[in-house]
Amino acid sequence: MKRVPASFVPPIAIDYHTKTPMYRQLYDWFRRVITDGQMRPGQRVPSTRSLAAELKISRIPVLNAYEQLLAEGYLETFIGAGTCVARSIPDDALSAQASKARKGLQEIVEKMGPRRISRRGAALTHVPTQSWLDNLGAFRVSLPALDHFPIRVWSKLVARHSRKPTRGIMAYGNAMGQLSLREAIADYLGAVRAVRCEASQILVTTGSQQGLQISAQVLLDPNDPVWMEEPGYPGARQAFMTALAHLVPVPVDHQGMNIAEMIRRGHTARAVYITPSHQYPLGMTMSATRRMLLLNWAVRTGAWIIEDDYDSEYRFGSRPIASLQGLDTDGRVIYVGTFSKVMFPALRLGYVVVPKDLVSAFSAARDAADIFSSTLYQAVLTDFIREGHFARHIRRMRMLYMERRRALVKAIQTQMADMIEVIGAEAGMHLVALLPPGTNDVAVSRKAAQKGVSAMPLSICYSKPPTRGGLILGYGGANAHQIHDGIRKLRMSVQGQIA
Amino acid sequence: MKRVPASFVPPIAIDYHTKTPMYRQLYDWFRRVITDGQMRPGQRVPSTRSLAAELKISRIPVLNAYEQLLAEGYLETFIGAGTCVARSIPDDALSAQASKARKGLQEIVEKMGPRRISRRGAALTHVPTQSWLDNLGAFRVSLPALDHFPIRVWSKLVARHSRKPTRGIMAYGNAMGQLSLREAIADYLGAVRAVRCEASQILVTTGSQQGLQISAQVLLDPNDPVWMEEPGYPGARQAFMTALAHLVPVPVDHQGMNIAEMIRRGHTARAVYITPSHQYPLGMTMSATRRMLLLNWAVRTGAWIIEDDYDSEYRFGSRPIASLQGLDTDGRVIYVGTFSKVMFPALRLGYVVVPKDLVSAFSAARDAADIFSSTLYQAVLTDFIREGHFARHIRRMRMLYMERRRALVKAIQTQMADMIEVIGAEAGMHLVALLPPGTNDVAVSRKAAQKGVSAMPLSICYSKPPTRGGLILGYGGANAHQIHDGIRKLRMSVQGQIA
Repeated sequence: MKRVPASFVPPIAIDYHTKTPMYRQLYDWFRRVITDGQMRPGQRVPSTRSLAAELKISRIPVLNAYEQLLAEGYLETFIGAGTCVARSIPDDALSAQASKARKGLQEIVEKMGPRRISRRGAALTHVPTQSWLDNLGAFRVSLPALDHFPIRVWSKLVARHSRKPTRGIMAYGNAMGQLSLREAIADYLGAVRAVRCEASQILVTTGSQQGLQISAQVLLDPNDPVWMEEPGYPGARQAFMTALAHLVPVPVDHQGMNIAEMIRRGHTARAVYITPSHQYPLGMTMSATRRMLLLNWAVRTGAWIIEDDYDSEYRFGSRPIASLQGLDTDGRVIYVGTFSKVMFPALRLGYVVVPKDLVSAFSAARDAADIFSSTLYQAVLTDFIREGHFARHIRRMRMLYMERRRALVKAIQTQMADMIEVIGAEAGMHLVALLPPGTNDVAVSRKAAQKGVSAMPLSICYSKPPTRGGLILGYGGANAHQIHDGIRKLRMSVQGQIA
Repeated sequence: MKRVPASFVPPIAIDYHTKTPMYRQLYDWFRRVITDGQMRPGQRVPSTRSLAAELKISRIPVLNAYEQLLAEGYLETFIGAGTCVARSIPDDALSAQASKARKGLQEIVEKMGPRRISRRGAALTHVPTQSWLDNLGAFRVSLPALDHFPIRVWSKLVARHSRKPTRGIMAYGNAMGQLSLREAIADYLGAVRAVRCEASQILVTTGSQQGLQISAQVLLDPNDPVWMEEPGYPGARQAFMTALAHLVPVPVDHQGMNIAEMIRRGHTARAVYITPSHQYPLGMTMSATRRMLLLNWAVRTGAWIIEDDYDSEYRFGSRPIASLQGLDTDGRVIYVGTFSKVMFPALRLGYVVVPKDLVSAFSAARDAADIFSSTLYQAVLTDFIREGHFARHIRRMRMLYMERRRALVKAIQTQMADMIEVIGAEAGMHLVALLPPGTNDVAVSRKAAQKGVSAMPLSICYSKPPTRGGLILGYGGANAHQIHDGIRKLRMSVQGQIA
């Protein structure tokens, strides 16, 4: 490091032994002294020749630095007057006083507390720290059995498409998704979920969360009332909050969301968010009566129904319940699903079945959100479905999750029967374990997270504190040993918290 | 196909030669006659034995169908009374009259015109058909030279991470992105763009579009004024529209957005969207004076600055202009960038540099939007940057695009000098070709699209029809031959449209 004093400019600090190129050091130095106000507008800078001589360096880096500073407007050249600090840089912006004033402002800002962001931004931030999501241990909700995923088949398909990618795999894709994948999804949903749709109605998303947010954006104006299941899926709440909708919690009973009561009282809504196949998180199935009631009410009042058909692939007692969408003859149902759990979460692919007249609006909203989904995985997933791997994988996982569920229920019965009551249908990838009345389920979850166990507190699914807390226990990603060990740790976590 | 009449149920149509399983046909049939009202609530259904005999099939599919219908609540079993259509299905919902009434409603809906969606949904749909985006021909804006991408290196890295994926590559990831990638991005932006940030401030997105939409969601309430460059980037307009912001067009001059005039008149805004390095689409660089003025005004009024630093990698005359973010000492600048154009669009990875106190809000908004970015490509990109391929690729593309730009300018000079005026700095991946006054640029673009040439009309970058139309011509994805041929076709497209 060598400091070169100069009569007309502040001392320039040049480091001859760093990797930072010389021109860059000069450029940085000039920019700093100009913005700090150490060099004044109109002040002449040394000629490139004299500065190079003074610093004992070649003229080239000096020329480069000046060229850059000129291009950015920090310096100006006047014929006959040489190169000067730009005169048009406002005094107050650049003087040392201004610099101090700005620092003062910053302190004021810091003292004034949080800076103003949007209502929605503030609301989204008001979620407690979810420490139970920090680990991938036993009972992590929505986590599938990753070690049972046919990774060899999958990575072969990945290689097939990534080694010699088509332009389509690399360039901009369609906002609605790749046609071949949309066709495969439409076929799958028609056969397995009795969804009535054409490929043109399928919007490929990055998962159900994006499907929910885009649905909210297309359908809802600020303060529009939306009926939400109570308890319900927190991700959906977040999605509708970003559209500034007015969330109306509607209690669930053994048949799912109790819409009969709402309709009887004459309440209306712009949209209803609902998980009819397998209520989140409690697991009941919406009865046929309620389904028809809901559809007729929607047609009568012009409300939209957003059907989240999560986990419908896994039903251990009877065959999967057909979708609500399949009963809808009026295009009132927006059907949302995801591959995150039947495949793996980092795939980031899901879908929305959109009523025909709303396709252009959904497509435009997707374009505004993030243009389109990564195409490599779309192409790979299409092959995975078309070649039969998908159906095979679901069948295998259905058996595996049935066993895991049984193992979890048994572990609870033997180790925690005195403190936990299990609810939830024989379906999906999680069950709900109710805790003794008065137990703080968030505290239990935090405690469990410290032991590497991920147990989601039931109370975060409520808009108001529930009368009884509980834990949502995922069993997709945990084997028998992990389940047994996890329940042991959970027992310890609960013991300290029982009121 | 055999129709079996039955005294107590409508004729059942069973197809013995289809792939649809028998139980499924039965299930579908019962569901239809129940919802259509052809079978009434409380009506007894045949015993499984008699139905099987009647249809001359095994009892098993009949049992399966009934089991399913019972699980879904279409049927009920009463001890001693056998199996009946569920009594609780409301008459009005299921009767033939109701069915007709619903069909009538549907007709009314169709006659009433478009069904009500959100203001934002309707506004997003009001974009003219962009037929010039239907092809990947010459001049497609934002399309890089895909055939010069080092695909062998890339697919080796893809294979490395996809063959034996870690749990991290498959499970749920961090809403802000993978730490290793965030570190690589922070290092890159610090070195090349003089961005001042830590890895903790980097939000990995699916591209700059998502960065813009999330910024809008976090920062803006409905009707909050946002200054937008006029002309400006249409994608940004869409992103701010989804947050229902009030867009205020601010004209640009040779120094970029003319904020001086707005500030002098005392106008305020919650946020400013700006492309200071390379104005979109016209290409000028914002002067140092304006930058300082903008920053000081933002601190004084509490406004946010959203800096979109697109295409800053490619500057052919001088070295890249440093970012506005690097001059900001008050955390007022949200810096948005993307890998879509330096890498390839289908990568779907970009980033936002977030002021420290807003990190939790941005993270929550990303979580609400689509949880996190696909991890495979994050891991691959990290290696690609860390192993030096990224810097090498940018250097090569800089040379290539400089040549392609030169070829395009020359082709215009020789073939279209009489009808086109080229503007736009020596930077980026596109230039603007102004058309003769009175020429309808959208019509020209449509015409060109028919010939397989993608030329974006300048007028779509304006909020009000501009006095002079033009074409935005991308040269990243077109080689010398394609450029020459494209200009020939463009000449023909323009000729028919000159007023």
